[in-house]
Amino acid sequence: MDHPSHALNAMRTAAPLVQNITNYVAMNVMANVMLAAGASPAMAHARDEAAEFAALSSALSINIGTLDCEWIDCMVLAAKAASEKGTPWVLDPVAVGATALRQEAGAQLLALNPTIIRGNASEIMALSGMATQGRGADAADPVSAAEDAARGLAARSGAVVAVTGAVDFVTDGTTAHRIANGHQMMPCITALGCALTGIVAAFAAVAPAYDATVAALAYYGAAGEQAGQNAQGPGSFQVAFLDALHTITGEQLDSVARITAA
Amino acid sequence: MDHPSHALNAMRTAAPLVQNITNYVAMNVMANVMLAAGASPAMAHARDEAAEFAALSSALSINIGTLDCEWIDCMVLAAKAASEKGTPWVLDPVAVGATALRQEAGAQLLALNPTIIRGNASEIMALSGMATQGRGADAADPVSAAEDAARGLAARSGAVVAVTGAVDFVTDGTTAHRIANGHQMMPCITALGCALTGIVAAFAAVAPAYDATVAALAYYGAAGEQAGQNAQGPGSFQVAFLDALHTITGEQLDSVARITAA
Amino acid sequence: MDHPSHALNAMRTAAPLVQNITNYVAMNVMANVMLAAGASPAMAHARDEAAEFAALSSALSINIGTLDCEWIDCMVLAAKAASEKGTPWVLDPVAVGATALRQEAGAQLLALNPTIIRGNASEIMALSGMATQGRGADAADPVSAAEDAARGLAARSGAVVAVTGAVDFVTDGTTAHRIANGHQMMPCITALGCALTGIVAAFAAVAPAYDATVAALAYYGAAGEQAGQNAQGPGSFQVAFLDALHTITGEQLDSVARITAA
Repeated sequence: MDHPSHALNAMRTAAPLVQNITNYVAMNVMANVMLAAGASPAMAHARDEAAEFAALSSALSINIGTLDCEWIDCMVLAAKAASEKGTPWVLDPVAVGATALRQEAGAQLLALNPTIIRGNASEIMALSGMATQGRGADAADPVSAAEDAARGLAARSGAVVAVTGAVDFVTDGTTAHRIANGHQMMPCITALGCALTGIVAAFAAVAPAYDATVAALAYYGAAGEQAGQNAQGPGSFQVAFLDALHTITGEQLDSVARITAA
Repeated sequence: MDHPSHALNAMRTAAPLVQNITNYVAMNVMANVMLAAGASPAMAHARDEAAEFAALSSALSINIGTLDCEWIDCMVLAAKAASEKGTPWVLDPVAVGATALRQEAGAQLLALNPTIIRGNASEIMALSGMATQGRGADAADPVSAAEDAARGLAARSGAVVAVTGAVDFVTDGTTAHRIANGHQMMPCITALGCALTGIVAAFAAVAPAYDATVAALAYYGAAGEQAGQNAQGPGSFQVAFLDALHTITGEQLDSVARITAA
Repeated sequence: MDHPSHALNAMRTAAPLVQNITNYVAMNVMANVMLAAGASPAMAHARDEAAEFAALSSALSINIGTLDCEWIDCMVLAAKAASEKGTPWVLDPVAVGATALRQEAGAQLLALNPTIIRGNASEIMALSGMATQGRGADAADPVSAAEDAARGLAARSGAVVAVTGAVDFVTDGTTAHRIANGHQMMPCITALGCALTGIVAAFAAVAPAYDATVAALAYYGAAGEQAGQNAQGPGSFQVAFLDALHTITGEQLDSVARITAA
């Protein structure tokens, strides 16, 4: 593995334009998280301009949290445009197992060859076709329960698969790593998982998919650890987390990253 | 009245899944407020999955802040699904008197037997058919002006009705209480009223509607008072408010709650 | 020029109801920024009530960040209703040069006689028909590159045109001023430009368009400077910025405003 600082520094130098099609709850926090990190997010999801924006961008993230027919059309158009141009794109299959509509959307997008898939354990298990205890956007299953599902999904889809939780798991179907950074307060703030998908996309704009994913998860978790040092609750944690994403250096990241082969 | 800590503690133990159909301005803050309190919010409003989500959830909140035909369909489907299963649901009739579209939506949802209705004085008066000075989402009328409207609305609809403002008023048509907790900075932050409706729903998932409503309002106001102690303005108030929702204990709540029979 | 405190104080006294049709990313922060400043924002964008809300409001802001056919219809209805009543309205042509859909929407709204147009340099150049390097919502062009475009656009459209950036530029086609307030952290927080458009609209509800625009920009920049004094990063900056918008007085504004004839 590369030091995670390589991808972080390259991302900050490039400030890549990343198109994000995400849900309404996440849009603002995702944009702020990406700006704090040094990327240039564009939150563009209109059907009539999805493909045009995807062609301008260095990476694309798609999150199925907000769904209706027009949104699914837009996601498909953007994913196709990205695939045709060879632009990396990341799929975030929010609550994919919860309803029939989400399962269909997940399957349809999976067929369009995402470069990376990032979800919690319940989502990765559901996308992989396994039974799960997830409900809504929260994971009821531990990361470890999804490792086989992740390996299988990566092998079948060709995507790098990231299962995020207390300890994250990343695999391309052959190799796998665990990233043990993070803070217990992170699930108490809405859409931090969704926003992470945008950070993964920004890193994938400047580094190979596997290294980009591992580095992005370590960076995000390290910022969470720094934020947790003085937070009094989820309000002050959120503030300190944006500050940490902005101020943490590559050197600091390398010194605190806990990445191990799995 | 039960001590408000009973409902708070029961809610934190259950971490109930609450479906929320709310407006775009409120979605993020509502999710964060509910997570900070200890509930498990799902912000799901697609027509094609509204009923499925309502069946999974322990409570439902519906806010008419964002309106178009598809949204109204979704609200109706979810409210019907909740009523059929006996799941408590809370109606937040945002700016119901302001436009013809809102009046129709309010009347249509009122006919679907909400368990609880929470609004400001102008909204409760408008929903009850009275003249009001409200404009947009802000209340121009004092809570006291809406007490008769609230009693009448509760008696006709069978719902617990909460009028929130400087001193809140709750009634089931027969009994009534006032809750005097809160802080003057709260109206300076957008969507704190909308988010409160989610807290009421979360409490209603674990306690009888009347007690749940009174306890939720006292808890929310007590957290506001704690947040106001060190806030320099609406930015720092918001941060401290999320922290207080998370850290305030049942014992602290009981010691500061100002609940009186009306 | 009037002292900028005149418009600020008048706005706080009137607390004008301002209707805002803006994008999903900006809605919450725009509402909070306007509430912190002392205005009364209504975030109403349903086609069926756009004209009704515009008739109730003292000013209107329209931002094309979120676009689809229904939204464009709504914007047109609201702009027409405002123009017919003589209500000031402000156009924010987000990323107008980026896609064909945005160019059409920008041209259609420009034909409805906005009172004020506020954008970054790339947006004002694109709306004026010039080539630009902008991509997405970020400005790649410096303010100075857009001064001629702004003068021409103001002369042709009859609108006051504001180009915002490190040093803002305001012109009505004849007169022009530069406003040098602000802080380098402001572009690191999403939607602060969008939210500024709401502040300009609120000031335009109580003062002549040119003076209102200059005063609003000075006020916004002055609050940014105050926020920057203790911020550790974009998270704490955001919090301090809302506090500063709320607490800064007219006297403080006049003493720090850096407004010069151009």
